[in-house]
Amino acid sequence: MLDYSLLAAIAAVVREGSFERAARALHLSPSAVSQRVKLLEERLGQVLVVRGSPCVATEAGRHLCRHVEQVGMLEQDLVGAMPALAPDGLGRVTLRLAVNADSLATWFLPAASAFADSEAALLDLSIEDQAHTAERLRSGEVLAAVTDLAEPVQGCRSLPLGAMRYLATASPAFVKRYFPAGVTAEALSLAPCLRFSQQDRLQARWVEQQLGQALTLPTHGLPSSQAFVDATVAGLGWGMNPASSVAQALAEGRLQPLLPQAPLMLPLYWQYTRQQLPMLERLTQAVLAAARDGLEALD
Amino acid sequence: MLDYSLLAAIAAVVREGSFERAARALHLSPSAVSQRVKLLEERLGQVLVVRGSPCVATEAGRHLCRHVEQVGMLEQDLVGAMPALAPDGLGRVTLRLAVNADSLATWFLPAASAFADSEAALLDLSIEDQAHTAERLRSGEVLAAVTDLAEPVQGCRSLPLGAMRYLATASPAFVKRYFPAGVTAEALSLAPCLRFSQQDRLQARWVEQQLGQALTLPTHGLPSSQAFVDATVAGLGWGMNPASSVAQALAEGRLQPLLPQAPLMLPLYWQYTRQQLPMLERLTQAVLAAARDGLEALD
Repeated sequence: MLDYSLLAAIAAVVREGSFERAARALHLSPSAVSQRVKLLEERLGQVLVVRGSPCVATEAGRHLCRHVEQVGMLEQDLVGAMPALAPDGLGRVTLRLAVNADSLATWFLPAASAFADSEAALLDLSIEDQAHTAERLRSGEVLAAVTDLAEPVQGCRSLPLGAMRYLATASPAFVKRYFPAGVTAEALSLAPCLRFSQQDRLQARWVEQQLGQALTLPTHGLPSSQAFVDATVAGLGWGMNPASSVAQALAEGRLQPLLPQAPLMLPLYWQYTRQQLPMLERLTQAVLAAARDGLEALD
Repeated sequence: MLDYSLLAAIAAVVREGSFERAARALHLSPSAVSQRVKLLEERLGQVLVVRGSPCVATEAGRHLCRHVEQVGMLEQDLVGAMPALAPDGLGRVTLRLAVNADSLATWFLPAASAFADSEAALLDLSIEDQAHTAERLRSGEVLAAVTDLAEPVQGCRSLPLGAMRYLATASPAFVKRYFPAGVTAEALSLAPCLRFSQQDRLQARWVEQQLGQALTLPTHGLPSSQAFVDATVAGLGWGMNPASSVAQALAEGRLQPLLPQAPLMLPLYWQYTRQQLPMLERLTQAVLAAARDGLEALD
């Protein structure tokens, strides 16, 4: 068997981002944590944690962290069936997931709270553009992800969740100022649009879909789903927002669609590691249930 | 004078994260962009952009990008006064700012839209924990930041903005389940709390403030201000939320304070580069006005 006191030290340093915080979480001294990490690095002959602010795992370190999470999930299930194994209970296992920001802002949270309510698990969510959550899965940083990638990442299973309906919206004053003659290529090249991140291609894709050509769009960068909606209402720019996030503002006339009947449908998938982990299967069931309520059926 | 066609190429690659997207934004071919970047790197004898997905600036590259933004701001003001200099107008300048997530979710957006409304400028916001926005300023990635650091970063001016009032809240069901006998050290070491990121010390600080001792708190990681509020309401954990973000949920009984009359006040500062840049001064005025409306006076 592997020495899990060493592996737990690595996992805590990566989860907490520093040796000091990891030591606090493990009720050890920082030098004890440091010794354990060094010992494992010497045995393996490679660096597992890049010391910095924050400390981050190397590729080898990420594999070990993922293994610790997987073993933690199996232990929880075993002790659930055989409580005498650990009469004082186990520490909770932390599961790292990558979720795209708009899913977290709309349909994902009921899944997280339903799952956490009944399991001895903590969730550590990282937020990415939907095009980049799969990257986190591939690199081994997370066990599961909500992604726009249908094709399974190596070692993972991919389940369709449904589609997110996006609408191009702006404030009435913004439409009046920038689109007096409608949504033309000229108007779009002057009207600032919002984008979540460098990877966010939704605005560009919608423009291509509507106009049949790619345009250079002047963009404000705003990496927050809620701020994206708020900034659209405030007139900072136009942007692609989830239909459910802007339904009220549209009904109240604080926002209007740039074009009627021109949604962009984004299919989403749940990808998770193929190992047989009952706890992860239960999380998967909670995610599928929440997606059925919050996303539209895929054709 | 420096060759600004080369400098503009570097800035676009870093802003867009790839040579292809930079080429599209500059209406050049990717190989032309690549040649310009290489030429500048050869002249300087150092790497300016780390090629990857995304491409990121090296320290030297960041200095050049910041210079391009500063010159862009000065150009906008000059052409505003002497329109004949550029009869077709200039491209808009992009200003990169770092803002802590809770400021963006509460008081900051009116400043951004008031400023963008009247200036030929685009904003590229990055979101960090308040303890880390200053890091972005120090590394030269942004021109200005909302931070909890009072002491000026080298080369920057620091202005007090006011204080954000945070309340420790949870759902009534969560309080009933985890705090039946009140907010004790034992209850806190079992009740999951939320934290925005590894750097988020607000929950730990509040516990130290109330109990006079540091505790190891089981934590869910949730890097989104809106999801933080939603997850508190959904009962995933307790967390420190801005008072203004939870006022309605508290009034409606969907949340309750863990302890009455026990806020945590977080002073915030606006730090920005000391160069004389009139456009940045105008942004500063908009930020100060929004902070007067949205934050509480510092003692």
